[in-house]
Order: sequence, then structure tokens, then C-alpha cells
Amino acid sequence: MGESMRVLVLGGDGYLGWPTAMYLSARGHDVTVVDNYLKRELEVQVGAKPLVVPPRLLERVGIWQEMTGLFIRAVENDAKNFWGLAGLMEAAEPDAVVHFAEQPSGPYSMMGREEAQFTLTNNLNTTMALIWAVLLRRPDCHIIKLGTMGEYGTPGVLIPEGWMRLPGLPIGKKFLFPREAGSLYHTCKILETDLLHFYCRHQDLRVTDLMQGPVYGISTNETELHSDLRTSFHYDDVFGTVLNRFITQAVVGVPLTVYGGGGQTRGYLNLRDSLRCIELAMESPPDQGEMRIMNQFTEIFSVNQLAELVVQAWSDRTGQRAEIQHIKNPRREDEEHFYEAEHTALEALGLEPTSLDGDVLDGMLAEVTKAGDQVNTSWILPRVTWRDGWGRPELS
Amino acid sequence: MGESMRVLVLGGDGYLGWPTAMYLSARGHDVTVVDNYLKRELEVQVGAKPLVVPPRLLERVGIWQEMTGLFIRAVENDAKNFWGLAGLMEAAEPDAVVHFAEQPSGPYSMMGREEAQFTLTNNLNTTMALIWAVLLRRPDCHIIKLGTMGEYGTPGVLIPEGWMRLPGLPIGKKFLFPREAGSLYHTCKILETDLLHFYCRHQDLRVTDLMQGPVYGISTNETELHSDLRTSFHYDDVFGTVLNRFITQAVVGVPLTVYGGGGQTRGYLNLRDSLRCIELAMESPPDQGEMRIMNQFTEIFSVNQLAELVVQAWSDRTGQRAEIQHIKNPRREDEEHFYEAEHTALEALGLEPTSLDGDVLDGMLAEVTKAGDQVNTSWILPRVTWRDGWGRPELS
Repeated sequence: MGESMRVLVLGGDGYLGWPTAMYLSARGHDVTVVDNYLKRELEVQVGAKPLVVPPRLLERVGIWQEMTGLFIRAVENDAKNFWGLAGLMEAAEPDAVVHFAEQPSGPYSMMGREEAQFTLTNNLNTTMALIWAVLLRRPDCHIIKLGTMGEYGTPGVLIPEGWMRLPGLPIGKKFLFPREAGSLYHTCKILETDLLHFYCRHQDLRVTDLMQGPVYGISTNETELHSDLRTSFHYDDVFGTVLNRFITQAVVGVPLTVYGGGGQTRGYLNLRDSLRCIELAMESPPDQGEMRIMNQFTEIFSVNQLAELVVQAWSDRTGQRAEIQHIKNPRREDEEHFYEAEHTALEALGLEPTSLDGDVLDGMLAEVTKAGDQVNTSWILPRVTWRDGWGRPELS
Repeated sequence: MGESMRVLVLGGDGYLGWPTAMYLSARGHDVTVVDNYLKRELEVQVGAKPLVVPPRLLERVGIWQEMTGLFIRAVENDAKNFWGLAGLMEAAEPDAVVHFAEQPSGPYSMMGREEAQFTLTNNLNTTMALIWAVLLRRPDCHIIKLGTMGEYGTPGVLIPEGWMRLPGLPIGKKFLFPREAGSLYHTCKILETDLLHFYCRHQDLRVTDLMQGPVYGISTNETELHSDLRTSFHYDDVFGTVLNRFITQAVVGVPLTVYGGGGQTRGYLNLRDSLRCIELAMESPPDQGEMRIMNQFTEIFSVNQLAELVVQAWSDRTGQRAEIQHIKNPRREDEEHFYEAEHTALEALGLEPTSLDGDVLDGMLAEVTKAGDQVNTSWILPRVTWRDGWGRPELS
């Protein structure tokens, strides 16, 4: 365990934020979580709930303290509010800020004009408030920004870790590798990369941009301590990631719905590895003025491969066969494409990847089975389409 | 003259917007100008006025009609307001929208947090409102977006017209050339490029992104028709472009202030050429779903070269020697660097470049001399610095 650091986790109520907060607290760090419960509001808006609805932060940090004796500070606040954030910089004096505080869904950002505008305003303004709170109140603080592998899209060549060279220039001179995202949400992540890059170069901000692949998993050592410490696991079409959705479909006995051909290929990682990556980034901050970009995933799968892994794991567990159903792809994306991406930086810092093996899948199936009667199957099939009109037809 | 088209000019009160509106009207197009007079408010905020303050739009279009018999529709409205813009799409049925409606100053965007946040919100939300008004109300409409050569920065290699290839991919597959801007304003233009690119690829928007260099000039055939049809020529540190500032300094007998070494090199163009470029883009729209990027400048100069050209022209005109003074560079930028950029697309469409020759400079000197007693020299020296603290020290 490294030196104890002070860390703010923005978006600390979320699927990743809350397990990150507990993980860092358990490793001896002084953690403050901030959340405005935006995602809980959006869940009501779109009609979707996590498998279990966790208590609010003030209650959860109390349970955390009961179980571990460790204190996590909880602040119910909107991270878009610069003055609130500036005050927190002075009060909490963080060495690092982990920034998860965004509208986190691609499909949500493609529902219609209002959702797109909201995603743009909310996500950019939160990042901008954070940039300025750090610049003006805590300029040495390390911003750990959650980006996404989705920024790169599927360019058809090996995706480097953020940067590329241009021919004829010295080795040290690097440029952002071109980005072409598949949803407005992912495009907003590109905009935030551009914004952070500018303030690193011009105002000496210190940033790690973690280009994360889709995360799967439901448990960590910390979530397992108490039922009210579980994280908000989504299986719905708007907030659920693909493997979490397939696991849920297998458990409740509906077909695993593959969008289109299923050759869509991405880099994935386990929730536990995601937390470890954050810790590794935090413990080795970049220099002042540096924008460090790392690709955060461990294994590459196509959607078809994921579906088949779940079918196999369900069969191993129950002897029953889960069905796979290919449905019309609601998104506009290549369904057969080249996909390779570098991802050595986090392993060089010490990440030991968790494989998506039978045990991991069986653990997820077991955990979802416990709450299987809570699943609302009407939330699983895609309700938002990219191409043929809008999710909210009254606006089209 | 081509076929008459219906065109909206957003930001029609500005230095470029108003001459563009008259130019297109004079060429037989049906023009509607939209402006919320934001820049006039910002002028008060920073303490800076144009050389002559033009009447508001409703008065100007009346004078235009008196002088030419031609009608320009004027709408005093905020282009960030989606519903207003959507209504205009239905009322004016534009074939093209020329989008100048932004906070247009690099130095303003670097004054402090509030100005940076304002620039981000204002410029991105205006572009977003336009994107959606077109998508939902007028999907065939061609968006002509004013970008800036400043998006590219000074990469040290030949700058292409927006796009690059990646090795190993088919010729047709192109990616955005990397962008590294020198101010937050210019970075917002990058963000808008990313946003437009997304909606072209995913919702079949039709966009021309004009990467314009700094514009110089004060007169066009149309502004010369009446003193109240002149455009808002800025010579101040916040809104004035460099050559316009040097011309004004020569006229009022203060030294031409070069920021730092003066080796900063960019592509420039004459105001008259800028209008012609808009017209050329409008008359040859890209395909639906296409993002066309063209570099809009005609000649490359260093700041030192511009200063020497003005010294020479002033000497030719008056026999007097204008002084050049190198002052500490308020910006964070390379002062000696390689600079070459492609700019053949607009010439291929028919642009015949105006050279920055003695006649052009003499014409500008003559025009500024007429209003020379209006110049406030306290507005010329840089009041905003990039690096050593903020323009608004109370926030630092």
C-alpha cells in the first residue's frame, strides 16, 4: 500500500464511483465523494432501475464506517457548480480528483435534442468547473478523468494510447490520435479530451485521461461486505453495458439480444480492474502540465463472443441453454471491422488483469440470480435508435 | 451570378457578418440576418469600441434598402435559442446558414474563469442549437461554419485542408488532422468541429467548415455605399486582428506593438476575399452527410512582415516613419516556427486572391485616417496575459 492520499471522487454514487470510493478508502486513502444524484433522476426519466437500488450516500458512508471503521466524507452537490467545487478544493485539499460525474449513457445522448443538449451542457460544464476549481484553488492536484475507448471509434488500424507522431517531426512531439465516436455521449468525451489538453498545455494542468472500455462485473471485496454497500448494477438498454445485460438476460430466461451481426469488437475490463487502474494512476501522477492518456481495458471480445461465453457459463451452472437472438441494430456502427488497441501503460504501472473466465461469469450469474425477481424485462430491449428517427418521436 | 438562394446569416451584426449579408444580398440572394448584439455587450464589458459604431440591424437594413432597393430581413434574436432558430428555419426556409454567431475573441476567452466558461457555453450551445434546428426542421440545409486556422496551431509540418490519412487504410478513409489551438476560443472551435463531424456522420448533416485565417480590411463595395453601412472595425487588443491594429497604430502615431519576437506566422486574407469564399462555399454545397473542410486564407506572413509592410505603406503615404516596438508576448505561443498550410480548395472553386499590396494598405490607412480622432489608444496594448496569471486578478 502506498502513501495515503486525499482524493475527491466526483460521481461517487455511481456504478464505478461508489466502488472506487470504498476501494480507495480501504487502501488507506482519505476519500470524499460528491454526487448530485443525477443518474437516479435520469433513471426515472427513461424508466430504468438498477438491479438493487442502493441507499443514498450519507447512509452508505455510515454503513461503510460501521463495517470498516473507515470514514468517507459524502457531499451531496452538483459538480457543475464551480463555487461548490472550489470550496471543496480548499476544504478537502485533494491530491487527486477522480472525475466520473457525467451523464454516462450513449443511448441517452441519442434519444433526442433535449437529451443531447443536456449531455453536452452537463458533461462539459462539469469538466470545465473542475478544471477551474483546480487551476484557481489547487493547481498541483491531479485530475484523473474517465474517458472512453469509444472516443477512438473503430479506425481500422491499431489504436495507440492516445497519441500519434507525424512524419518528419522529432520523437518527443506528439499529437492526439484522431477520434471518431459512435454517439454524442462519446463525442462529448472527445470534446473534454480537447479541453483538458488545452489547459494542460496552456495552464499546466496535470491530467490522466483513462480511455476505458466497457466495464463488467457486480462485486468487489468492498461491495461484498454488506448488502447496502452493493453498487448500482444496470441491465437496461440505456445504462447497462453489454455483458451485464447478457448475464441478466440469461438469469431471467429471455434471449441474449445481440445488436445486428454481433461482430462489433471492443476492449473490456472487470470492475475490480477498473478500480485498480484508478489507484495506479493516482499513485503515479503525471508531471505538472502533462496530459497522460492510458487505454484502460484488459481483453478484446466481439459481442458474439461475449454472448457465447454467457451461454456456456449458464449451461455450466444450470444445464440449461440460453438463447441468442440477433435483433436489428439500433445504432449506426460497423458490425464487422478490424480492432486492435495498445494497452500496456497500466500493466507497466502494475495492473494484473482479471480474465473473463468461467469463474468470473459464474460469480456474476450467481449474484444476479439472487435479485433475479427484481428484473424488469421490458427495460432490456433497445428503445433508442440512432438512424431511423429519434427515440422521442414527438420531436422529429 | 448563380441561382438565387435563401440564406440565414447568424451573427449578422459583426465585422464579417454584416458585410457578408450585404454582399450576398447584392448578388441576388434572399438574406436574413440574426444577431443578439452579444459583441456590443462584450465591448462594453472589456472597454473597447469599433472605430465607428454602426447602427443596429433594423436601421442598417433600412439604409441598405434605400441605397439598393434590396431587402435584408433582420431578426434580433439569440441563436442559442433553439426554438427561435427552429421557427426561422420554417419561416425563412434557408438553403444555407452562415454561422458567425460566436464570442469571437481569443484574448476574451483567456481573461479568466467566467469569460472562459461563457465562451464555452455560448459558442457550443449556439452551434448545437443550429445543428438541431437544421436536423429537425430543415435537414437539407447547408451549414457554413466559420472555423479558424487557429484550430491547427503550429504543428511543424504542412497543414492539410482539415483531413489526413492513416497508413495502411484505403484512400477514401480520412481522419481529422490533429488540432492544437492557442486559446480557449480557438479550442472551442475544435470542439465544434468534433460536434459537426459527429452529426455529419451519424445524422447526415451537410457542413462546410471554413478554417479562416485572420481577416484584414475595412471596406467592401457595399460598405462604401453609405457611412452607416460601414462594418465594425476593431483595433483593440481583445477584438482587433493584428493588421487592423497595426494600421490604426500607424495612423494615430503610436508604435506598432509586436508581441514578442514577431516570428509568429499565419495565413491572412482580405475581408473582400472572405465574403467571396462564403459565396463560393454556398454555391457549391457538399453532399448530405459530408463534412467539407477548406482552409480560408490567401497569403502567409509573419507578424514582423506585417509590421514592416505597414511601416512602408505609411512612409509612402505620409513620408513619416512609423515605429515598431517589440513588447513582452502576452500569449503562450512559438515565436519562431515552421508554417505552411494547403489552401487550394477555395481557389479551385473560383477564388481570385487579393494581394496585400501597397494599394490595399494605403486604402486601409486612408479609411482609418478619416476616423482617426475616434481612436482610443488605451485600448490597444494587451491587457490579457495567457501565462503569468489571469486578466482578472481578483479570481487568481
